[in-house]
Amino acid sequence: MVEILINNRELIEDRVGAEIVIKKIADLDIDSDRGVEIDPASLTTDAMEIINDPEIDIIVELIGGYDQAMEYILMAMERGKHVITANKALIAQYGKLLFETAERYNVDIAFGASVAGGIPIVRALREGLAANQIKAVLAILNGTSNYILTRMTEEELSFNEALSIAKRLGYAEADPALDTDGSDAAHKLTIIISLAFGRPFAYGDVYKEGIDGISPEDIKFASELGYCLKLLAIAREADGHIEARVHPAFVPLDHILANVKEAYNAVYVEGDFAGPTLFYGLGAGRRPAGSAVVSDLMDMARNQIKGITRRVLPLSFARSPAKELSLKPMDQVITEYYFRFSAVDRPGVLSKISGILGANNISIASVIQKGRGAHDSVPLVMLTHEAKERDVRKSLELIDKLDVVTENTVFFRVEKETGI
Amino acid sequence: MVEILINNRELIEDRVGAEIVIKKIADLDIDSDRGVEIDPASLTTDAMEIINDPEIDIIVELIGGYDQAMEYILMAMERGKHVITANKALIAQYGKLLFETAERYNVDIAFGASVAGGIPIVRALREGLAANQIKAVLAILNGTSNYILTRMTEEELSFNEALSIAKRLGYAEADPALDTDGSDAAHKLTIIISLAFGRPFAYGDVYKEGIDGISPEDIKFASELGYCLKLLAIAREADGHIEARVHPAFVPLDHILANVKEAYNAVYVEGDFAGPTLFYGLGAGRRPAGSAVVSDLMDMARNQIKGITRRVLPLSFARSPAKELSLKPMDQVITEYYFRFSAVDRPGVLSKISGILGANNISIASVIQKGRGAHDSVPLVMLTHEAKERDVRKSLELIDKLDVVTENTVFFRVEKETGI
Repeated sequence: MVEILINNRELIEDRVGAEIVIKKIADLDIDSDRGVEIDPASLTTDAMEIINDPEIDIIVELIGGYDQAMEYILMAMERGKHVITANKALIAQYGKLLFETAERYNVDIAFGASVAGGIPIVRALREGLAANQIKAVLAILNGTSNYILTRMTEEELSFNEALSIAKRLGYAEADPALDTDGSDAAHKLTIIISLAFGRPFAYGDVYKEGIDGISPEDIKFASELGYCLKLLAIAREADGHIEARVHPAFVPLDHILANVKEAYNAVYVEGDFAGPTLFYGLGAGRRPAGSAVVSDLMDMARNQIKGITRRVLPLSFARSPAKELSLKPMDQVITEYYFRFSAVDRPGVLSKISGILGANNISIASVIQKGRGAHDSVPLVMLTHEAKERDVRKSLELIDKLDVVTENTVFFRVEKETGI
Repeated sequence: MVEILINNRELIEDRVGAEIVIKKIADLDIDSDRGVEIDPASLTTDAMEIINDPEIDIIVELIGGYDQAMEYILMAMERGKHVITANKALIAQYGKLLFETAERYNVDIAFGASVAGGIPIVRALREGLAANQIKAVLAILNGTSNYILTRMTEEELSFNEALSIAKRLGYAEADPALDTDGSDAAHKLTIIISLAFGRPFAYGDVYKEGIDGISPEDIKFASELGYCLKLLAIAREADGHIEARVHPAFVPLDHILANVKEAYNAVYVEGDFAGPTLFYGLGAGRRPAGSAVVSDLMDMARNQIKGITRRVLPLSFARSPAKELSLKPMDQVITEYYFRFSAVDRPGVLSKISGILGANNISIASVIQKGRGAHDSVPLVMLTHEAKERDVRKSLELIDKLDVVTENTVFFRVEKETGI
């Protein structure tokens, strides 16, 4: 972020028409080489020096975490400073409080870097697509997971093999849990649905599953069936009900999202007038995050030049949306499903399983039953037509108790176009 | 545009915090059913009624063409009205004059609908990616051409067969020349480079070729070689030199742009900090264009509420960019090439051809020479390493004069990542 302000200083000044000056930088470590030229006098270990400096108009919070970051942001806003943060967890957990505080002190709070790094999706939702009712969002928001799934698909690796490559290449942290268990994507989806629907949703509103348990077998079946497996963050709105969920899903190979590979992120948005749109790019990393932070900074500078604040409110709604909205419980979600049953290789198994499915309103679209192998148990793979999550859970509970079924059934949701 | 203001009135008011009222609509035909409910009293055949109405703050120009549209826009700006236009040809031809006039009368001019319809790329370049030096743009900006190339690729049709399907389905006009000869894409690229580099480039600055002459044979070879053929609008900046060109190009099949099919548009942008980004969606049609126009309208309404104008200038540069920029002549462009020679099936041909290429600094990356066929003449296909356009033109002129060469050589440029 400092690097981009230095490297592109001239361009930024040409665009904004004013200079953006870095007055102070607070960090616990002010001795290490930062890779950019900074006046040592502007470095401090005391964040309060910044918060109490009346000459500073805007603070940028890049600490991460909750308590300390929250405290600093609230204090800065109380002192009339605008805030830019890349802290997705903070916005997703405490967005409501932060936005109310910003309103109380008549300041702006921007968080473009908190979702999808270099992809200007926050701005697209707030402004570019602002005239649209957002009908659906299907997004790949965690680069680590997407990288792991790409390796598992292209090199037929196990989850653990792909994870260790990701770690070696710096795509995964030493503790990758927040990435691979869906939490990171769920934080980002919380922010996206808040922007799309104009309410500060909270992290707990989003259902989540990770990619940890995915077996190469299912990735292989996916590809045989014309799909790939992606960790999707999904929001859909219909009749005032909103679905918000993060989980691995089957995506048809000819869908543009299926072509989002490696550590890339992408957000597919369906607006009622714009139709389907996709925003693709690097979701993480110092440089893409810097691009987002400085873009927010330029936005605020443009406001300062005109002597205004709060031109576009944090969620881009000037008032509470009139439209009634409620979260759809996960068990009411309707989608298509992929099942992989492990069953003994004996006549009558398919009939038992399909009997239970049929009795629970689940109709089968296709079946792959592999010929007899060397094992006692063979995989039986199915794609269903649209079914309700509750019916699926109930059926699988019954099926997994059958004596011909040898292991818990694996299932994935299948996500297609919503057909706008 | 009227439809979206009516359908999404509540949402738009919630977001903006004020009502956007359609005061008057001028059209030559005010009797036909418009498909939306409009107070007949707001319809007029006299555009001057709008231009002279002091209660009207913003006019939206959706006439198209040059003279009449230009006249109305200039008159509206003289009277202090802000202008929104979807008229890409006008902005691409007369952007400089229009932006200067807007400055003189202290009004805003917005043209988000003029490029790529429902894709908020203008806003992304002006704001979301504003902190970046734009290094490259590779874009699919003409839906008709992309639809035709998709049909030619997937169903192995000729250009004319694909064109007639496009016409039947409404993807091509009765006179499709502006779409298929590259003019439409060149207009849009003119606007994109103006935004990216902060200068009002003119349409004539962009080199252009269309897709009319493309033969199914080259599409087949492309796919054998791991590429597809797309009509690309390309801008690249390096060392102050800008390339701006529209032509069919080979795109590697694993590039995200290769997956932009049917009538979709997409703009691939490389920023120096954001890295590669892609913006994808519907580039044409009443509804996507309406999304863009109303988004601009909301932007202006937000300014009006704050009592400001010209917060972000038309090209998003507050002053002329300091960086020196010059257009690179087409013959200086360097890229990889695909050649299809038609030559007699005789020993020594390859040596003659490669001799001329070598003498002109063109080195060959790979060759496909099909076995002897029933014809006198056989295709000889080559991919080159990076070469200069001037050298290519010169070599092909010499090669096409060889007595062993039976037809003019077909060539396409091959566009890859720029490797940021």
